[in-house]
Order: sequence, then C-alpha cells, then structure tokens
Amino acid sequence: MIEIITLGTGSAVPTRFRNLSATAMFRNGDIYLFDCGEGTQIQLRRAGLRPGRLKKIFISHFHGDHIFGLPGLLTSLQMAECSQQITLYGPEGLRSFVEFHKSFSGFTLNYPLEIVEVENSSSAGEFKEKGLTIKCLPLKHRMRNLGWAIIEDDRPGKFNAVRAKELNIPSGPLFSKLQNGDDIILDDGTKIFSKEVVGPKRKGHHVAYCLDTAPCDASIELARNADILIHDATFFSKNDKMAAISGHSTVAEAAEIAARADVRKLILTHFSARTVPEDEEQMLAEAQLHFPNVEIARDLGRYSIDYIDE
Amino acid sequence: MIEIITLGTGSAVPTRFRNLSATAMFRNGDIYLFDCGEGTQIQLRRAGLRPGRLKKIFISHFHGDHIFGLPGLLTSLQMAECSQQITLYGPEGLRSFVEFHKSFSGFTLNYPLEIVEVENSSSAGEFKEKGLTIKCLPLKHRMRNLGWAIIEDDRPGKFNAVRAKELNIPSGPLFSKLQNGDDIILDDGTKIFSKEVVGPKRKGHHVAYCLDTAPCDASIELARNADILIHDATFFSKNDKMAAISGHSTVAEAAEIAARADVRKLILTHFSARTVPEDEEQMLAEAQLHFPNVEIARDLGRYSIDYIDE
Repeated sequence: MIEIITLGTGSAVPTRFRNLSATAMFRNGDIYLFDCGEGTQIQLRRAGLRPGRLKKIFISHFHGDHIFGLPGLLTSLQMAECSQQITLYGPEGLRSFVEFHKSFSGFTLNYPLEIVEVENSSSAGEFKEKGLTIKCLPLKHRMRNLGWAIIEDDRPGKFNAVRAKELNIPSGPLFSKLQNGDDIILDDGTKIFSKEVVGPKRKGHHVAYCLDTAPCDASIELARNADILIHDATFFSKNDKMAAISGHSTVAEAAEIAARADVRKLILTHFSARTVPEDEEQMLAEAQLHFPNVEIARDLGRYSIDYIDE
Repeated sequence: MIEIITLGTGSAVPTRFRNLSATAMFRNGDIYLFDCGEGTQIQLRRAGLRPGRLKKIFISHFHGDHIFGLPGLLTSLQMAECSQQITLYGPEGLRSFVEFHKSFSGFTLNYPLEIVEVENSSSAGEFKEKGLTIKCLPLKHRMRNLGWAIIEDDRPGKFNAVRAKELNIPSGPLFSKLQNGDDIILDDGTKIFSKEVVGPKRKGHHVAYCLDTAPCDASIELARNADILIHDATFFSKNDKMAAISGHSTVAEAAEIAARADVRKLILTHFSARTVPEDEEQMLAEAQLHFPNVEIARDLGRYSIDYIDE
C-alpha cells in the first residue's frame, strides 16, 4: 500500500487554506517527499509523519515556494533521530543551496545526507535501486524544472497453494522455484509449469509528480499507466493564457494529461492563492470533463492505492 | 499605543504548540518585525497583520530558527502591495543572504528594500530617524548576535486647555508656543510660563528585544527602563548549565535581567521544544520569584502598552 499525503497545496504565497508545495508519499514505512516549500516540516508534523522516517526528498525546481522549507527541515532532522541515510534529488545547484545554508547558519548534519544533482545538460535522469526505479524529465516551466516518477519493480504473481496441493507438489524449495517463474519436474516425472500455480506478475506501484509545468509530453511519459499522477493545476480553465505565460497548467489541461497518460488516479494541486475552498466544486467539474478519477487536493489530504490484485 | 504580537515562541524546531522565532510590534499602523523563523509569513497572516504594513525587520542572528522564514517573506511581500520602503537590519552577512536567495530562486523585488548591516567589528549600532532611535548591541550567544531597542522620542507634556482659558490666553499660535516649551507674554503684559499650562514631557515608548542570549550587561543596557523587554527564556531554571553552554537564558535569569534593567513588563519567549503548555505555570512561578510583571508568551499572544499618562 502506498499513501499520498498532500502537505501543502497552494502556490506562490501561503493562504489561510493552503500551505506551500510539499507532497509526501508513505511507502513501506518510509517517507518520500516531493518539494519542500516553507512550513513543510510543520505540515509533516501535523500529518503525524515522523521526520525521522524520511528516506528521499525530490526537489522539482528552485522557486521559493518549492524549496524554502528545505534548510529548516534539514536542520530539524538533526533532532529527529534519523534511522537511515536521506537522499536529496534535484536540479544542478541543489548542493550549493544546502552548502550555503550550512555555512551561513553554522550547522552540521548528524545524519548521512546524499545529494544527487541532475545536471542541467541532462535530458533525463534514471536511478535504479533495490525494488525501485526513479525517473526524472525536464518539464515546461520558467526555469529548469524536473518531474519525477517512482516506479516499483513488478512483484511475482500470487501463489495458488490450494492448486499446488492438488498437484501433489511438496511444500518447500519447489514452491520458491515455481514462485520465481521456474518450471519443475516432480519425483514421479510430472512436469509442472510455473504458470499453473502462480498468477500473472503483479505490477509495481507507479507514482508521478509533475509540477510546476505547462502541459507537456514529458509529464505524459513520466505518468504513463501510473497509479497516481500528482499534477500542477494552478489555474481555472478560463485562465489558460495566464497558465501558459507563467508555465503552469489549468485544471482541464492537467486532466487531459492524465487521460492521455492513462493513469488510474489524478491528484490536482498547486492552486493559485486566489482560490478558496468554495471553488473546489467547479475545479472538480472542469477536470472531470476530461478525466473522471480526480481529486482536488487539500492540505493534509490522504489518498491511498493498493495493488490492483491484492 | 504599541502592541506586541508574539508570532512564534519556540526554539530550534517547531512543535505543535510553538512556531519558530518571530515577534511583531505594531506601532502607528506599521509593523516592526523581530526575527523571521520559518513560517513567520503564515503567522503574520494568522495574527491578522497585513504584510504590506511591514516597515522594519530586525534580525538578531543567523541561526535558522531566526532567519529561514525571511526569503519566503521577502518573496511574498511582492504580492502584498507594500506601501512603503522596508528596512532590514541585522548582522554583517545579511545582504549576502538576501542576494543569494534572489539569485538562486530568480526573484526580483517590486518594492524598495533597504538593508542595514551592523558590521561585525562594531560594538554597538545606533540609527536615528524622525521620532525614534534604534539601538543594537552584541549579546552573548554562540555566534554574533544583536539585541535591539526601539526608543521613541519623548512627547511634549499634556496641554491644560482649561487652565489656559482661566489665564485668558487666546487660542491659536500662543498655544503652540506654550506646548513647545516656550514662555509667552500676553498683550496686557502678563508673563505665562509654559509649565503653567503644559504637563511634564511624556516618555516615549521603549521596547527591547534580547534573544538568543545568556544573561549579559548588553541586555540590561538595551532594556534599561523599557516599557517592554522581550527576552530569551529557553530553559527552566534547573537547566542553567545547559543554558550557559548553549548561549541561552533560563526563565529565572531572564527575570533577573528585567529586574536589574527596571523594565515595566517582561515577555518571555524562545522556549525549548521540550516544553508543553502545562509547563507555563511553573515557568511563571520561577520568573515571578525575580520579577512580578511577566508574561509567558504564547504563539499569537498580544501584549499592549499605553503611555502611562495618556
């Protein structure tokens, strides 16, 4: 199970209703954080997410509403009893931002922090690790801006123990072989195909995060068949010109991206400071004209996905 | 009337109860801000203080819990329709902090921002302007740290119009002369002394802000006879060794400073993240052993002072 917690869903300036950009993904007991606007450490606490659980932080770009909460979070993590290395991903220049604040405020870190910069000359980034692939692509904004996709490896299919018993397969190492996709031959010479007792591979979770951005092919590529796409929806559809000029998307444009990428669920966020809660109904209606399974994110909103065949 | 609004009363890390350091002073429709920890712009909004009213910002030092909210505030002020120049005061290096963030995040300011740095070699700073003197002195902390005093000029005494009428003084320019301290001679040759109709000069307001600091003479000097002293009280009295090592004060030490400086009111703030609301009673008791008129600041607490003889 993966849970998405939208910590801050506003843009540019915080309002009474919306804090600045930050979205947490809770997975296997770890927190993956996308962007870190001012106040993110406070929102993490409000959401009941222990900062010590942070494993990865992804920064999209360097506008203040996406990164000005990072120095405070990194400082506070020193008191959070971090149990693991934290990896910070983002555009080239991220290291200088961290180093500037460490030097300026005179703090050192008592936990391992790895910084992974995606060079400005790179047209894409891909990082593989156990069970997971992280991808990033430049999006369409007023400055270098990276969209992210977290793609879990597929898991083996479900093992049908009842059927295995019917086929007189002794439990033990042979079960593992079958589960791993190998066919086996029993002592009596009967050949058992893996697919007789193991269901089809189960698709790993796939979450894509695309803000700030105007509609672009890179978002579709990152989000293709994703379980959840979190997408910039700064403006109402009528403000499409303002969206284009400022490198943002309208609610309708974001929904179109979701439809074209064929995702399961769309979470819209990064709303203009001019929006109020009463606008949500209209925003939802505008989005659903293009894509049905959509949420208008609220601060501290929670959205979960299970494996389809779990 | 001057009003103090304690926006953030915690230290190091924000808690459920206390945000990071920031204190506003509301005076003649202007906001003077002392320190700007992360989340200050949000707290200003919660307090109902329009950021466009900001006139002066004083930074004590560069630890993150006192300055990491500044880049976000300066950025957001662009949308706040600032009606006046904002002056930012603080230790040497403050300009580089602002310039770094402007360059990093690619923002320009659409309002006039003056930056006044107090050089590290300076043992004191004094800035005079119409009706006001601003003083600063280095305090006793782990890094260069400035305490601040805002001292209004004294105002002329109260004019006794009833007495003036009894003395047959014609209203008009002669009233102004008397109010300004000049003696006059009426047409019939009667000499009128200013002090016959004008009360004693009225003391201007005086507010001192001293954190983060261990007890020191500079705090006493800044706070001497102040109406309000806002002072570091990070620790309970039993933790005096920890306070000394970290360059902070205990509740009792802060109260002693207030007593020695003979202030009217003491506001304690910058409490350790370990304190909870239930601790306030004990903190108050510890402080009142040394100084009676003391407040344990809460986030968004309001404390006002009137002219004594108003």
